[in-house]
Amino acid sequence: MDMLYLIDILGTIAFTISGALVAINKRMDAFGVFIIASVTAVGGGTLRDVLIGSTPVVWMQDMTYIYLIVISTIFAIIARSKIDFFRTSLFLFDTIGIGLYTLIGVEKGVTAGLHPIICIALGVMSACFGGVIRDILCNEIPVLFRKEIYAIPCLLGGVTYFVLELFPIPDNLVFLVSGGIVIVTRLLAVKFHIALPIIAPKS
Amino acid sequence: MDMLYLIDILGTIAFTISGALVAINKRMDAFGVFIIASVTAVGGGTLRDVLIGSTPVVWMQDMTYIYLIVISTIFAIIARSKIDFFRTSLFLFDTIGIGLYTLIGVEKGVTAGLHPIICIALGVMSACFGGVIRDILCNEIPVLFRKEIYAIPCLLGGVTYFVLELFPIPDNLVFLVSGGIVIVTRLLAVKFHIALPIIAPKS
Amino acid sequence: MDMLYLIDILGTIAFTISGALVAINKRMDAFGVFIIASVTAVGGGTLRDVLIGSTPVVWMQDMTYIYLIVISTIFAIIARSKIDFFRTSLFLFDTIGIGLYTLIGVEKGVTAGLHPIICIALGVMSACFGGVIRDILCNEIPVLFRKEIYAIPCLLGGVTYFVLELFPIPDNLVFLVSGGIVIVTRLLAVKFHIALPIIAPKS
Repeated sequence: MDMLYLIDILGTIAFTISGALVAINKRMDAFGVFIIASVTAVGGGTLRDVLIGSTPVVWMQDMTYIYLIVISTIFAIIARSKIDFFRTSLFLFDTIGIGLYTLIGVEKGVTAGLHPIICIALGVMSACFGGVIRDILCNEIPVLFRKEIYAIPCLLGGVTYFVLELFPIPDNLVFLVSGGIVIVTRLLAVKFHIALPIIAPKS
Repeated sequence: MDMLYLIDILGTIAFTISGALVAINKRMDAFGVFIIASVTAVGGGTLRDVLIGSTPVVWMQDMTYIYLIVISTIFAIIARSKIDFFRTSLFLFDTIGIGLYTLIGVEKGVTAGLHPIICIALGVMSACFGGVIRDILCNEIPVLFRKEIYAIPCLLGGVTYFVLELFPIPDNLVFLVSGGIVIVTRLLAVKFHIALPIIAPKS
Repeated sequence: MDMLYLIDILGTIAFTISGALVAINKRMDAFGVFIIASVTAVGGGTLRDVLIGSTPVVWMQDMTYIYLIVISTIFAIIARSKIDFFRTSLFLFDTIGIGLYTLIGVEKGVTAGLHPIICIALGVMSACFGGVIRDILCNEIPVLFRKEIYAIPCLLGGVTYFVLELFPIPDNLVFLVSGGIVIVTRLLAVKFHIALPIIAPKS
């Protein structure tokens, strides 16, 4: 099992658990918790695959995702009172997850022969839109649009990828650096409470 | 006209009317009622077709669905004050409808060569996600995630299908028994007020 | 640059600005404003393309849309206090936009060999569903379902298109007249406060 796949697995677990926790707080039943957890984990990639026409979508072709989601959801339900214990690890997985999901989205766009700006958009979508669909299903205005600094690190990582691609740098290094940019900028943004300005109506 | 097609028609009618009634209760205009009714009737199948890449989606290729939806919506609007009269018949159609929609979804997955677990997921999606999209459009947390016992009967029906497929049983009998499981378990769950446990946050 | 393309551009600008203004009123951050503006501009066409299987969706293949959306969003954010100034022009662009978007949707359906009723539905979807997705993301019941007279002009324009197609009329004239019907009926409906009746529950 290679490094990327391992991180993908950790990312899926982290996204599943974070989705399950949101659903539990909304007092959903076991089925609702499972669906919200699934959507958080694979919603962004599913939207991406549908928009570029890469179907059947990825989780229909590799059962690993389903098994991970089922086990992680059950774990989240059982351990829900003690989950604060894991909060730091979860946040770390989640951050590593968006770094990797961004790269996977960008790569999918490159493979489909799309423009770099579209590829970056696909990267952001892969990493961030699972959470958007989760919030819509939970009847909330997506947190991504109000105060999260999820999207900007992904954007920066995507731009880094294409800047590095201009130079004769080995692919693995490009992945490492641009994924690293996502992770480091997100960690810094959270640590120093950096957020995008709210655009308030002026009168 | 064969039996399956007839039940499909009854299911579409029942889903359309139930969607229209929800929209009427939200005080939508005639156009909104029509859209919500349509989405309830074909939303689950549309999502399924899009995710597996079976496009144009099914209601674009057989006009029967459109005609049924238009007529059933007009009927629901006109008869809205007397619809309690039909409530039992509606519930029965609806229950038969989810039984059949589950089978259609499972079959679509099998035809696309997907894993049994994915096929069952497609069955549940076909039967239940029209209602989920309806609730999102109506700005509600989907009732499916909180108290419905819609999804579990579909799940059981899908599992039954694949268990029976292991034996040398004729296709028609497999359909009949697994569709019947959906219908009977749903009727029993409603009669005896069986629901999934709400997963409440623990502190 | 031909006439249709110019109007398409004006329509995209108008939809983007109207979406951005809604997001600003919801006090979203800069990223949220950009996403809501994008979705309002291209959401209807994206849904249409996904449902008929025309992927990658159109804005992934012509970068003009992205550039227009970025510039228009920045303009809307900067000029938000003075935007009342442009309200009449915006409304006009928007109305011309739905006229053209309707035609584009209808044409896409015809090219895909779909039934006229489906083509008209695709026209309405192209013109109106960007606003529906915008409202869902903003956690509102879509205004289209409650009081807008957006959909009916598009429907009339689509019907006009297919009626004219029965006669030996040049394509350009068919476009002009059916697009004109959308625009004129919408202007009249707004001027004379014509709306569809709300379907209230009867007891």
